[in-house]
Amino acid sequence: MENGMPQQITDAGRLSEQYPNSVGEIQDRSYRCRQEPGLMTVHGHSTTRRAWGKGPPDSRSDVIDFVRSSYLGLDNHPAIVAGAIEAIEAHRSLHWPRGRTRLNFDLLEELEELLAEIFRARIRVFSSGMLANLSAMLVLASGQLTGGKKPVVVFDQYAHISLAYQKPVVAEGTRMATIAHNDIDALERMCREYPVVAYVCDGVYSVGGCSPIMKLRQLQERYGLFLYIDDAHGISIFGHQGEGFARSQFPQALGDRTIIAASLAKGFGASGGVLMLGAADHEALFRRNSIPYALSMAPNLAAVGAALGSCKIHCSAELGQRQRRLAQRIDLFDRRIATAEQGNSLPTRTITIGSEANAVAIARELLDCGFYTLVKLCPAVGRGSAGIRLRITAQHELRDIEQLCDSTLKQIVKTTGKPYPLR
Amino acid sequence: MENGMPQQITDAGRLSEQYPNSVGEIQDRSYRCRQEPGLMTVHGHSTTRRAWGKGPPDSRSDVIDFVRSSYLGLDNHPAIVAGAIEAIEAHRSLHWPRGRTRLNFDLLEELEELLAEIFRARIRVFSSGMLANLSAMLVLASGQLTGGKKPVVVFDQYAHISLAYQKPVVAEGTRMATIAHNDIDALERMCREYPVVAYVCDGVYSVGGCSPIMKLRQLQERYGLFLYIDDAHGISIFGHQGEGFARSQFPQALGDRTIIAASLAKGFGASGGVLMLGAADHEALFRRNSIPYALSMAPNLAAVGAALGSCKIHCSAELGQRQRRLAQRIDLFDRRIATAEQGNSLPTRTITIGSEANAVAIARELLDCGFYTLVKLCPAVGRGSAGIRLRITAQHELRDIEQLCDSTLKQIVKTTGKPYPLR
Repeated sequence: MENGMPQQITDAGRLSEQYPNSVGEIQDRSYRCRQEPGLMTVHGHSTTRRAWGKGPPDSRSDVIDFVRSSYLGLDNHPAIVAGAIEAIEAHRSLHWPRGRTRLNFDLLEELEELLAEIFRARIRVFSSGMLANLSAMLVLASGQLTGGKKPVVVFDQYAHISLAYQKPVVAEGTRMATIAHNDIDALERMCREYPVVAYVCDGVYSVGGCSPIMKLRQLQERYGLFLYIDDAHGISIFGHQGEGFARSQFPQALGDRTIIAASLAKGFGASGGVLMLGAADHEALFRRNSIPYALSMAPNLAAVGAALGSCKIHCSAELGQRQRRLAQRIDLFDRRIATAEQGNSLPTRTITIGSEANAVAIARELLDCGFYTLVKLCPAVGRGSAGIRLRITAQHELRDIEQLCDSTLKQIVKTTGKPYPLR
Repeated sequence: MENGMPQQITDAGRLSEQYPNSVGEIQDRSYRCRQEPGLMTVHGHSTTRRAWGKGPPDSRSDVIDFVRSSYLGLDNHPAIVAGAIEAIEAHRSLHWPRGRTRLNFDLLEELEELLAEIFRARIRVFSSGMLANLSAMLVLASGQLTGGKKPVVVFDQYAHISLAYQKPVVAEGTRMATIAHNDIDALERMCREYPVVAYVCDGVYSVGGCSPIMKLRQLQERYGLFLYIDDAHGISIFGHQGEGFARSQFPQALGDRTIIAASLAKGFGASGGVLMLGAADHEALFRRNSIPYALSMAPNLAAVGAALGSCKIHCSAELGQRQRRLAQRIDLFDRRIATAEQGNSLPTRTITIGSEANAVAIARELLDCGFYTLVKLCPAVGRGSAGIRLRITAQHELRDIEQLCDSTLKQIVKTTGKPYPLR
C-alpha cells in the first residue's frame, strides 16, 4: 500500500498483480486435493466434492449433509418439483419451443414478473448466477452502467470466484483494483481519489460473514459509489418475501447506482441466476440483444418451472415459517459451539481447529459418524487456522444439529487432545 | 504480420491487441441491435433473439424456425422429455439429492459411461458447454495438459465466443495469439517457431464451415501440436454413433494431444456440455476436485435425465435415420439455392445479400411469410456482404425447405430489384 492506496490500480490493459491468479490456483488446488480424497475441501472460494462410498447403492451410508446451500430446504419441495415437471410436460421439451410452435417466452416473462414483485426490482433472468455475473462485469467495465464513464472497478478480496474470475476481462476495459475484505476505509479513499468508482462484493459471503451494506450505502450517497452485490447466499433467507440480505437493506427503489445479483439455485431452491436492476435503461442494457446469446441464455424449461413453483412459496406464509426454522437452528448451534460468526443470523459457521492435518482428520471422523462437512484449508485462511465449515438449513432436524455438535466436540478432543475452543 | 508471424504473440501478462475486445463489442452491439427490433441479428459469433409478437398467445403467428440448432430435431423427442421427467420424479428434486439421502452421483456416472461409449473417449460432463470451455482454457493455460510446459495458445479468429472470451484469462497464464480463420500455414509457422503450441478452434463453426481436421492432425503428428476443438455444432449429425464431426476424423484412441468439447444442447437434444479426453491423467485433471466447483457443476437432474434419453437414441437405428433426413434436406436446399457452403454436408447456409439494409428488409419479409431466420451483419462479415443465415434440421418438412427457398428468392427480387445470386 502506498499513501494508504492499494497498489493494484491498473491502467486499462495492464493486469493487477494482486488478484487471485486463477491459473495458479488451479495448479495448487490440483496438487492439494490429491491429498485429501473423499472429503469436501475448500481452497479460497472454491469447493470440491467426492461421492461418499463407491460400490452398489445399498452398500453406501446415508450421511447428513451440512454442505448444501439450500438454506430453506426448498430444493426438494413438492411444489418446486411439480413446477419443473409441469413446464416440461406442457411444452414436451426441455428447451424453449421451436419449430412449428409460437416463438414466445410466456413462462419466462411470467417468471420475470413474479421475481420483480418478490425482489422489488426490474429483473433479468440468466441460466446461471455465473453467467449473470459474467454479463454484468462486461457491461460494468464498458461504462454503460455509470453514465458512459468507465469506473474504476474495485473488487473485495473475497468476492465470489465467478466475479474474481472476470478480473482480467474487466482490466481489459477499465482500471481495476482489489482491496482487503470489507475494508471500507480503503474503499472510501478510492472514492475520494477517483470520480467514478464501482465496488464488487458479495452480500452474504459463501465463506461466512457479510458486507456492511449500510456503510456501503453511505459511501454511495456521499460519493455516488456504484454497488454490484452478489447476494447468491443471502436470497430467500432474509426479507419479508425472501428478497435477500442485500435487497432488504435498500429502500423501495433500488436506484441507478446499484445492481444486486442473485442465484435461484441456493436458498431459492430452483436453478438459474438473476440481476436485480433499479433503472429502466439498465434493464434495457441487459436485454438479450445486448449480451452475447451464449451468455444470456435463459434457464431451461425445467429450471423456469421450478423457479415459478418457488415464487409461489415466496409469496406465501411458508417462507416466513422456513426462515424462522432456519433461525432456530442457527441459534441452537450457537448455544452449543462458539464461533467467530456467533449470533450473526447467517447459516454458515466455521469451527477453527488449527492445523490442516487435524482439520482433515476431524472432518473424516465426522463423515464416519454420518455428518458431511467442509474442510477449510489454506490459502483461504491463514496458516494454522484450518477449520470445519458447515451450512445450517431449515431442513435439518434439531437433533441433527445437537448430534453434530456432540460429535464435533468429541472428535476435537480425540484428535487434538484438547477441548474446544482450541487455543 | 512480421516475417509471416502474427503480431499478437504476447508474453504472460501482456494482452494481445488483436483479439476481439469483448467490452467494445458489447457497446457496438447494444447500439446496433436497437436498430433492428424483432429480428434475430448476428454480430460476429453472437446472436440476439426477440419474441415474435407481443400480446395474448392467440394473437401471435406460428413461424417455422430456421434458427434453432437442434439439427436432428431431438430437443422435443418423447424419449428425451420422458428421461428428464423420470429423473426429477425419481429424486423428487431438480438438483442432486442432499440431506438424509445418499451422497452419490449414480445418474451422472451412468451418463458419463454411456457418453464414453458413444464418443469413444474419457468423458467429463459440465452444466454447459460454456463452462466446459472455461474450465478447459484454465487448465490448458496452466501447462498441465502439455506435460507441464505452458503452450503458446493459438486461437482461430472465428473460435466460438465462449472460447474467445477466455483470451484475457489465458493471456494471464501463458502466451497467446490469434490467427486468421483456418490459416494452416500460419499455424505451421507457429509450430516451427515454438516448442509447445496448442490450437483452439471449432469443429463445425456456428457461422458456417468447418476446421480442416486432417490437416490439423498432420501438424499434430509432425510437431506435437495440441488440439482443442469445440465441436458443439458437429455433435450427433456426424459419426456412426453421433460422435461428431471432429471425433469421427480421429482414430480409435484420441491420444493425449487432443481434447474435443461438445454441447449436449444442440444436435444432442438435451442440456449440458462435455469434454472428450484421450488420456487418464487429463481425465484426472478435470475431476471435480481440480476445477472450482462453481465451474465444474454437473447439469441438473432434468438435464442429465434428458441426456440419458438421448444416449439411447444415439445407440439405436433412429440416429442414422435422422442423420439421413437431415442430409436429404440439406441436399434439397442446395439444389434450389446456391451458396458458398453448397455441398459441404453441414446444416448452416448463408445467403449473401449485400447491403445490411436489404438483408434486414428481406429477413423481416421472410418473418412475415412465416420463416424465422438469422440476419448476418458486420462486423461478422465484410462490408457489403450481409446476408441471411439459416440452419436446416431433420425436423423440417421438405415443403418447409421448398417454401423457404421460394419465398427467399421472391423477396430478394422484390427488395433488391435483381434475381439471386446477386452480383
